[in-house]
Amino acid sequence: MKNTDIKELKKRLHEISHLSGAAALLSWDQEILMPEGAGDARAESSAYLASIIHQKFVHINDDKLLTRLHTELKNKKLSPHDSLIVSETWKSFQKESKFSQDFVYEMSELCSKSQQAWTIARSKNDFKTFLPYLEKMVVLKKTEAEILGYKGVAYDALLDSYEPGLTSGEVSAMLQELKEFLVPFVARIKASKIKINKNITKGSFDIDSQIKFNTMIASQIGFDFKVGRFDQSTHPFTTNFHPTDVRITTRYKKEDAFYAIGSTIHEAGHGMYEQGLPKEYFGTPHAEYVSLGIHESQSRFWEQKVGSSLDFWKYFYPKLQKQFPKPFSKIDLEKVYKVINKVEPSLIRTESDEVTYNLHIIIRFEIEKGLIEGSIKAKDVPKVWKQKVKEYLGIDVPSDTLGCLQDVHWSCGLFGYFPTYTLGNLYAAQFHHVLKKEIPSYKKLIAKGEFTPVVLWMRKNIHVHGKAHSADELVKKITGETLSSKYFVQYLEEKYGEIYKL
Amino acid sequence: MKNTDIKELKKRLHEISHLSGAAALLSWDQEILMPEGAGDARAESSAYLASIIHQKFVHINDDKLLTRLHTELKNKKLSPHDSLIVSETWKSFQKESKFSQDFVYEMSELCSKSQQAWTIARSKNDFKTFLPYLEKMVVLKKTEAEILGYKGVAYDALLDSYEPGLTSGEVSAMLQELKEFLVPFVARIKASKIKINKNITKGSFDIDSQIKFNTMIASQIGFDFKVGRFDQSTHPFTTNFHPTDVRITTRYKKEDAFYAIGSTIHEAGHGMYEQGLPKEYFGTPHAEYVSLGIHESQSRFWEQKVGSSLDFWKYFYPKLQKQFPKPFSKIDLEKVYKVINKVEPSLIRTESDEVTYNLHIIIRFEIEKGLIEGSIKAKDVPKVWKQKVKEYLGIDVPSDTLGCLQDVHWSCGLFGYFPTYTLGNLYAAQFHHVLKKEIPSYKKLIAKGEFTPVVLWMRKNIHVHGKAHSADELVKKITGETLSSKYFVQYLEEKYGEIYKL
Repeated sequence: MKNTDIKELKKRLHEISHLSGAAALLSWDQEILMPEGAGDARAESSAYLASIIHQKFVHINDDKLLTRLHTELKNKKLSPHDSLIVSETWKSFQKESKFSQDFVYEMSELCSKSQQAWTIARSKNDFKTFLPYLEKMVVLKKTEAEILGYKGVAYDALLDSYEPGLTSGEVSAMLQELKEFLVPFVARIKASKIKINKNITKGSFDIDSQIKFNTMIASQIGFDFKVGRFDQSTHPFTTNFHPTDVRITTRYKKEDAFYAIGSTIHEAGHGMYEQGLPKEYFGTPHAEYVSLGIHESQSRFWEQKVGSSLDFWKYFYPKLQKQFPKPFSKIDLEKVYKVINKVEPSLIRTESDEVTYNLHIIIRFEIEKGLIEGSIKAKDVPKVWKQKVKEYLGIDVPSDTLGCLQDVHWSCGLFGYFPTYTLGNLYAAQFHHVLKKEIPSYKKLIAKGEFTPVVLWMRKNIHVHGKAHSADELVKKITGETLSSKYFVQYLEEKYGEIYKL
Repeated sequence: MKNTDIKELKKRLHEISHLSGAAALLSWDQEILMPEGAGDARAESSAYLASIIHQKFVHINDDKLLTRLHTELKNKKLSPHDSLIVSETWKSFQKESKFSQDFVYEMSELCSKSQQAWTIARSKNDFKTFLPYLEKMVVLKKTEAEILGYKGVAYDALLDSYEPGLTSGEVSAMLQELKEFLVPFVARIKASKIKINKNITKGSFDIDSQIKFNTMIASQIGFDFKVGRFDQSTHPFTTNFHPTDVRITTRYKKEDAFYAIGSTIHEAGHGMYEQGLPKEYFGTPHAEYVSLGIHESQSRFWEQKVGSSLDFWKYFYPKLQKQFPKPFSKIDLEKVYKVINKVEPSLIRTESDEVTYNLHIIIRFEIEKGLIEGSIKAKDVPKVWKQKVKEYLGIDVPSDTLGCLQDVHWSCGLFGYFPTYTLGNLYAAQFHHVLKKEIPSYKKLIAKGEFTPVVLWMRKNIHVHGKAHSADELVKKITGETLSSKYFVQYLEEKYGEIYKL
C-alpha cells in the first residue's frame, strides 16, 4: 500500500513536471522565435497551461494521498529518497494551499498591470506612473508574508521563497560586512594609479564569428550541446524543460567582443547545473536546484572565478586573437585581462563589474527590506536610491530610468530575490576556496583549457544532490563552515589588489 | 441558461485548442530545434499532454453540457454559428466516445512499435520485418471501421476521418476516371519528341542564398511572416498553434535550386490557409480547416497552378537569374519552365511530377482499399505494388525500400489519407477554373508578381468559412458543381499538351 502511494505521488509529480516543461518551452519560444503577431494567443496559452499546472498541484491531495504519505514520513517509514519527496511536496503543498484563489488572482492581475506600468514609467523616466502599483505591490507582499507566516520579520517569509532557510538577519549581517569592506575598497581602487582604458579592446566584431567563438567557449567549459541549445535573446537567460533539454542564451554587441562572453559563461554555468541534476529523479525534489543562491553560485563561479581569471584567458586569448586579429593581435594578454576586470562604479547593475555589482544588490536589499518593514515609503524610493548610490558608489543618478526603475523585479513582486545574486557570489567564493585545495592543479588545468575536473567536482558536490540537502547543509558539507562573506572578500582583495597594486 | 451553456462550451473548446497548440509546439520544436539527447523526455511530455487533451475532450459532457446543447440544436434554437459548434463537437464527441480506453491504448502502442519496425524495414529493404505489424494494423483498422460504423463499405469509415462526406465509391470513380486518362497520357508524353534535360539547371547553390530566395517567394505570394515562421526540416511540413502562429518548413539541395522552391510554395499554400482561418473563432470548428483534401487544394494550387506556371516564372526567373547568375544567366525562361515541369515516371511519390504523382496515389489507394476489403493480403503488398507500378507508370521497382516501404503512412495507421492528396489536385483545378473566370486579369497579375487578389479570393471563398460548409458544399458553392476530375484533366491536357506538343 505504501509502495503504491509513493509511486502514485511520483507519477503525479512527474506529470506536473512535464507540463511545466511544456510551459517553459512556450515561454522560451516566445522569447526567441515566436512571430510578433502571436503575442496575445501565446499569453492565453501560457496562462491556461499555468492554471492547469496549479490546479494539478493543489488537487494533488484530494484523495489524501499526501496526508497518508506524510504520516508515513512522521513515523519514519520512508527511505531517505522518498522522505525528501514527501517532505518537500508537503511543504510546497501547505504553502500553495494557504493562498485563496482570490489572492492568487489579485496578485497575478497586479503583476501584469504593474509590469505594464513599469515599462511605461521606465521608458518615460516617470516614477509617478509606477508609484501606485509599487504601493499596492508592497501591501500585497506584506499580506503574502502574513499568510505564509514567519518567525522573525515579515521579509523572512519572502526571502524564504528564493533562499529557503536563510533569514534576513543572517543576510543583513553578511551584506553589512560586505558593504563595510566594499565601500572603502572601491574608493581605494578609484584612487589607484593604475588606470585601465577599456577602449583599446573596442572594434568591429562580426556577429556570426562571435557566435562561433561563444559556442566554442560554452562547449569547452562543459555545457553539453547534446542535451542543450545556445541562442540569442535580448536578456540572457537559462531555461530547462528536463535535464536533457537545457537552453541558454546570450546577446551580442558588434563593438565589444567581451559583452557577450561574460553572459555566455554565466548562463553556461546555470545550464551545467541543470544538466547535472539527476535525470532519473525528474519530477522530484531530488532533481531540482537547491536555491536561487546556489544556482547563482554556479553561474558566478564560471563567469567570474573561472571566466575572468588570467589562467582562463591564457588558454582562450590566443584563440580570440586568431578569431579577431584586429585589434587583439596588437594587445597583450595582461592588458586584456585588466580590461575584462576593470572596476568602475556605474549606474546599471547588469553591466557592472564583479566588485561594485554587490553594492548594487545591497542598495536594492536595503530598500526592499525597508519597504516591507515600513521604514521606507514607496514614494521615497527614488530619493533613497539616489542617496544610497551616492553614498556607496560615489556617483550621481541622473534619472529614475537609470536608477530605481532599471530592474523589472519589484514590478513582478520579486521581493527577496535580489540578495540571492550576492549570495551566489559568496557561495561561489567559498566553494572556489575549497575546490582549489581539493584540485591542486586547478590553475594549471584552467590554463590548459581542461575544465572537466572542475565540472565533475561541481557535479559530485552540488548537482547530483538536487534538493537532498538544504543550501545551508550543502555549504557546510562542502566547506565545513556556514556561509560567510570572508572568502569572497579574500578573493577580491587578492585579485584586485594585484590588478590595481593596492 | 442557453447562453451560459454555449459560452461554457466555447470556453472548454478554447482551452483544449490552447493545449493542442502547446502540443503542436512541442512537436515542431522536436522536429526543428530540440537537442538530440532530449528525445525520450520529449516523447513523454508529448504523450502526457496528448492524454490530458484527450481526457479534457472525453469529459467535456460529464455535466451533460453538450447533451443540453444538442437538444437546443435539434429544436433549432441556436444561431447558425452556434449550431456549427454544437453539431461538430457532438459529432467528434460521439466518435471519440466510441473508442474504449483499451482500444486507444492498443492502437497507440501498435503505431509506435509499427513505426519503429517500418523504419528498420525500410532502411534494410526487409519487408518481412514490417509485415506482422502491417497485418495487425489492418486488423485494427478494420475493427476501428466497425466501431465507427459505415453505410457502404468499411473503408468509408476510415476515409471519413480525413475527407468527411466523401465515400470510397465516389473517390474510386474519380480516381478510375483519372487513371484512364493518365496512363495513356503519360505514355504519350513518353513518346513525345520533346526531350527535356534536367541537368542544365543543376549547379552549386549556396544554401543561405537559397533560404533568402525562398523566403522572398513565400512572403511575396502572401505567407505572412508577422504571424508565421519559415524554417528547415528533413521533411517539409506546416504546423499551426493558432492563426497568428503558423510555421512552415522546407528542405534544400545544394545542387538543385528548384528542389526547395516547390516545397516552399506548397507549404506556404497550407500556411496561408491556416493564417486565413478566422482567429476570432479560435477553438471552434469555424476556425478549423474543412478537410485534408481542401487543405491540399491550397498547397497544390499554389505549388502547381501558380508556382509551376510560365506566368509565375516570368516574374521570378529574372530574380533567380540575379541571385544565381551561374547557370541561369545563360538559360532562357522557356527552357527552365520545361525543366520545372518535366514529366517522368519515377519511383518516389514525394519527388514525382504533377502528372505522374496521381498514379502514385492511385496505386496506394487501390492497395489500401484492397487490404481493408480483404481482397489483398498484407504479405502480397510488395508483389501487388510492383505490378501496379509497372502497369501504371511503366517502370520496374528494384526494391521495397523504393517501393511499398517508402511512405510512413500505413505504419501509423493512416488508411484513407492518401486519396486526399489527389483530391487536393482535383479541388485545386476546379477552383482554378472558376478563379480564372472571376479574376480575368489572373494571368497578368501572376506575371507581375501580384498575388493579393488571388489570396483574397481564397480567403473569401474558402479560408474564412472554416468548417462552416462541408467540402462538398464548398465546392458546389464556389464552382456550381460537385467535385470531378474533369478540370484537372483539362488543365493537364492544356499545359502538357503545349509543353510536349502532343
